[in-house]
Amino acid sequence: MSIYKELKEQAWLANLELPKRGLVIYTFGNVSAFDKNRGVFAIKPSGIDYDKLSVDDMVVVDLDNNTVEGTLRYSSDTKTHSVLYKNFPDIKGIVHTHSTYSVAWAQACRSIPVYGTTHADHLADDIPCTPVIDKVSVQGNYEDETGKLIVKTFEKQNLSYNKIQMVLVARHGPFTWGETPEKAVYNSVILEELAKMAQLTENIQNNVTRLEDWIITKHYERKHGKNAYYGQNGSIEKGGI
Amino acid sequence: MSIYKELKEQAWLANLELPKRGLVIYTFGNVSAFDKNRGVFAIKPSGIDYDKLSVDDMVVVDLDNNTVEGTLRYSSDTKTHSVLYKNFPDIKGIVHTHSTYSVAWAQACRSIPVYGTTHADHLADDIPCTPVIDKVSVQGNYEDETGKLIVKTFEKQNLSYNKIQMVLVARHGPFTWGETPEKAVYNSVILEELAKMAQLTENIQNNVTRLEDWIITKHYERKHGKNAYYGQNGSIEKGGI
Amino acid sequence: MSIYKELKEQAWLANLELPKRGLVIYTFGNVSAFDKNRGVFAIKPSGIDYDKLSVDDMVVVDLDNNTVEGTLRYSSDTKTHSVLYKNFPDIKGIVHTHSTYSVAWAQACRSIPVYGTTHADHLADDIPCTPVIDKVSVQGNYEDETGKLIVKTFEKQNLSYNKIQMVLVARHGPFTWGETPEKAVYNSVILEELAKMAQLTENIQNNVTRLEDWIITKHYERKHGKNAYYGQNGSIEKGGI
Amino acid sequence: MSIYKELKEQAWLANLELPKRGLVIYTFGNVSAFDKNRGVFAIKPSGIDYDKLSVDDMVVVDLDNNTVEGTLRYSSDTKTHSVLYKNFPDIKGIVHTHSTYSVAWAQACRSIPVYGTTHADHLADDIPCTPVIDKVSVQGNYEDETGKLIVKTFEKQNLSYNKIQMVLVARHGPFTWGETPEKAVYNSVILEELAKMAQLTENIQNNVTRLEDWIITKHYERKHGKNAYYGQNGSIEKGGI
Repeated sequence: MSIYKELKEQAWLANLELPKRGLVIYTFGNVSAFDKNRGVFAIKPSGIDYDKLSVDDMVVVDLDNNTVEGTLRYSSDTKTHSVLYKNFPDIKGIVHTHSTYSVAWAQACRSIPVYGTTHADHLADDIPCTPVIDKVSVQGNYEDETGKLIVKTFEKQNLSYNKIQMVLVARHGPFTWGETPEKAVYNSVILEELAKMAQLTENIQNNVTRLEDWIITKHYERKHGKNAYYGQNGSIEKGGI
Repeated sequence: MSIYKELKEQAWLANLELPKRGLVIYTFGNVSAFDKNRGVFAIKPSGIDYDKLSVDDMVVVDLDNNTVEGTLRYSSDTKTHSVLYKNFPDIKGIVHTHSTYSVAWAQACRSIPVYGTTHADHLADDIPCTPVIDKVSVQGNYEDETGKLIVKTFEKQNLSYNKIQMVLVARHGPFTWGETPEKAVYNSVILEELAKMAQLTENIQNNVTRLEDWIITKHYERKHGKNAYYGQNGSIEKGGI
Repeated sequence: MSIYKELKEQAWLANLELPKRGLVIYTFGNVSAFDKNRGVFAIKPSGIDYDKLSVDDMVVVDLDNNTVEGTLRYSSDTKTHSVLYKNFPDIKGIVHTHSTYSVAWAQACRSIPVYGTTHADHLADDIPCTPVIDKVSVQGNYEDETGKLIVKTFEKQNLSYNKIQMVLVARHGPFTWGETPEKAVYNSVILEELAKMAQLTENIQNNVTRLEDWIITKHYERKHGKNAYYGQNGSIEKGGI
Repeated sequence: MSIYKELKEQAWLANLELPKRGLVIYTFGNVSAFDKNRGVFAIKPSGIDYDKLSVDDMVVVDLDNNTVEGTLRYSSDTKTHSVLYKNFPDIKGIVHTHSTYSVAWAQACRSIPVYGTTHADHLADDIPCTPVIDKVSVQGNYEDETGKLIVKTFEKQNLSYNKIQMVLVARHGPFTWGETPEKAVYNSVILEELAKMAQLTENIQNNVTRLEDWIITKHYERKHGKNAYYGQNGSIEKGGI
């Protein structure tokens, strides 16, 4: 029996959550689950519909993008996942979708401003949008470069990938991650909801200003700070409201 | 057996209504049910998903925010509920959600104008949006101050909390209340629908004016006035259309 | 056994279709079914939720607004229905809802322009919006005056109620009718869809012009004209696409 | 037993997919399946609801629009299908719907610009919108002329119907096609999603520019080019993401 059975099951279940949460149609997304000790991750195979996906279809890949187990071709976004696992050492799950409102912001090449406490409950910064990827990178090792673009965006803007577990790749769409694949999926759902709220807010009123700093800090800290008082003691998941 | 059994069940059922009505995802909301004689209310525990919520998870709290029964930590918004129960003596249920369209108006820091009879069927005034909470209040006893901000907004604008059973906290989201927890949930659903209708109305036409006064009065009075003729005789609930 | 049994059942079934089609929440609407020979119609009682509505709850009313059968108070919009049955002699069903997009146009006090063939498949004119009802009419016999406002709007603009089976009452919402209650419900669904399409069309492009006349005529005539070739021979219902 | 049994079943199943995917209400659409060898296609009958549609209701039609098998009147759009089958020789399925967002773009008389990689994953060009059909064509053989307008639009703009398997008929709505009826339905779902994403993108930001050329090429080629690496080897369907 495969030593990756549990990892593949974790990735498979997280993938099935995407259509259930309304984040994908057809094959519009993929989730991977990372095993840090073994240095491999399990990821959705390319172009397989979610309703035909079995746990054995999951492909196990190492950080050099070699298939370690599995007979199917891995997701075409696999190299982006590898780059993120290599550069964001604390994460154990990554999600990529083409969810509607998140894509709209990515297509508009805009970061999503913090407009309210729903956003600040989850992160204390705008949700960053990368610059548009340049021609050389696209014609080279494209998916690898996409990962590097995300990493560079975080470095240049001095952002913490632990605090900001989501990004919009300009002209493309959202990537999210987390301490577990389930948390990464949770972050994708949250991002889509924040994207919709922000769009509606701007559509109501043209010149909305960013949320006041003191509110941002308060809402972020009451959930994620040293003295957080949201949720039950010892609860790992502090993403709610 | 707990003397709060009935109260907890009432709060629990009202909480379960939130995801059913599409008002919340994950843990984005909470309902409380008030027992006036005993001076306590039952409220959702913090950070627990609705689909894992049992009636015994409900926390019973007094108006000084002491836990009277229950082992879980109460909702992080509990102090806002207390302030409202203390200052709005006729209410017996409070709901807080982050429903999408209501949050959009709150994030835009705008009261929702009465644009039509659907709104006037429920209240004869704009749905008030509080000012943005100041820095000192946020850094102090935040959730308590949030409740006071709501109360102050009603006092300053001379609004009746019995007639206007809903408010937008600027940059945050909606709170609604009512004579029962069920009515408070009903008011949250209505608020979300009125918020969506008002947004669409403005998106169609830039300079919409407020509903004519005589229509507001008529629609409000035919349901809530002395000579109301909507609904069946003796029906307590007069919220419909 | 009641001689109105069939009429009440027809009204009841048509009322149940409203929540199924997503046109109403709670008690936001009503349908009536007309028996021309007896000069009475069956209508939803006021303020009763759709999921608690039984066929025996239906109220039978004559054209002078007297209850002929039934123990509940009839819908508060009943007098508007009477006026329409009296003035539009060919119709046998009327629907009133507060469906979201239709209300948005009504609240914006705008007729819905014919922007495409989906609209022209159903009617060859803009969907008329009445003027805002005046103060005297509102303070008088309000629901009766609402009906008269609809009738006057059709007279003044020389519109055919047989061809245009729907109207927006300004600041209020849609009324639709038809040769049967089922057709009237169908018209409410169509109106809501046309309202949404028109709003999206305007949101994409600011200065949309009305559909070209020759297309309007063609699409309307191929379904409703003398030489109509849509649908099966002898099919009564020609509302589709 | 009918020699067209399989063809009719294929058309029938593809038609049933339309309401399941949320593309149609009532009778707002039709799918046909083409048998190239026999020179006939099976198509939905006119004006029949999807939930009452049986496989035997399908009408088999030749390319001169003669009914070869079936007792019902064929879809009023049948002649448009014939023209497309005659002029686009590689296709074996056609879909016409009035899906909401696609219709909005058609009513605004606008092609849908490539704004992001979701679009470029499926086609490397804007989704073309035909000119508005002229008066003579509408008053003549209208549905035949509609087909010719589509064909002319592709010729004039030098577009490949194999690469661009969708079009908006101005003021009307979308037509899509494909190597199979299932692929044509898939294309209708994709078109509707791209239309929604593009609308939201424009609503966020007024002056969005077209996607950079190098990204368009890359995304299209990684799925559809000679060295495509999306999907499993030998998978016919390469439409995903």
